[in-house]
Amino acid sequence: MTDIRFAGRGDKNELENGNVFQPKFDADGLIACVVTDADDGTVLMVGYMNAEALARTIETGEAWYWSRSRQEYWKKGGTSGQVQQVVELLTDCDQDALVMKVRVAGNGATCHVGYRSCFYRRIVAGENGAAGLEQTGGERVYDPKDVYGG
Amino acid sequence: MTDIRFAGRGDKNELENGNVFQPKFDADGLIACVVTDADDGTVLMVGYMNAEALARTIETGEAWYWSRSRQEYWKKGGTSGQVQQVVELLTDCDQDALVMKVRVAGNGATCHVGYRSCFYRRIVAGENGAAGLEQTGGERVYDPKDVYGG
Repeated sequence: MTDIRFAGRGDKNELENGNVFQPKFDADGLIACVVTDADDGTVLMVGYMNAEALARTIETGEAWYWSRSRQEYWKKGGTSGQVQQVVELLTDCDQDALVMKVRVAGNGATCHVGYRSCFYRRIVAGENGAAGLEQTGGERVYDPKDVYGG
Repeated sequence: MTDIRFAGRGDKNELENGNVFQPKFDADGLIACVVTDADDGTVLMVGYMNAEALARTIETGEAWYWSRSRQEYWKKGGTSGQVQQVVELLTDCDQDALVMKVRVAGNGATCHVGYRSCFYRRIVAGENGAAGLEQTGGERVYDPKDVYGG
């Protein structure tokens, strides 16, 4: 456990204009964190933190998440080396979302599929009400098999 | 209701590498949408869409959300004029989050508090385990009273 504690929620004015961090965690105890490249602003991923993962992130300066699929703490880069060094951590008006600007170690990629960003496909309207996806053109940075086996 | 329908969820390979949009909505029927400025990449806000709000967004090219606090559809800019024109809509590897690149109409701001972006404060570690906030330096673009009354 870290030493960091978060304040309870204040009123609207305090949340929007105050200088005390009062994060809102959802019914599952999580807050969404948008991760961007500190140098060019590219959105790399969206992760979720519980209070302890957020505290560890603030305390260590490296990104920790709560994995919803595995139901466990997840230090980003623990396996892949793609550690995220926190450059700046922001919250929004009602303090229920985070933006985290990072520099990525290792091979510099973030997505487990091999791309630099998890957002490598755009949504396109198709025929008969279907919605499709197409690649945005980014090349795979690495082969996941080299990192995760498989 | 719109004409757009979304496909059911496929297997992992299909989700990560396929060209069919198979969005994952959470237990409340929502998907997180990170909104960025199409020109400079600034993260402006995080909103939530249900299937109908997402379909309306794709069909009209203007951003619709589901307001969790008001429990109603919310066309961004309906009151403020800060309509978001969609330039590109991306999804991530497991198709449970969106990034939407937009151009903002009206006064060009996004946050109801008056700032261009909702993320106008950074988190700073304080004494005795407290976590504080400080302004990132952005000026208010407008006075919310002029738009929303009050």
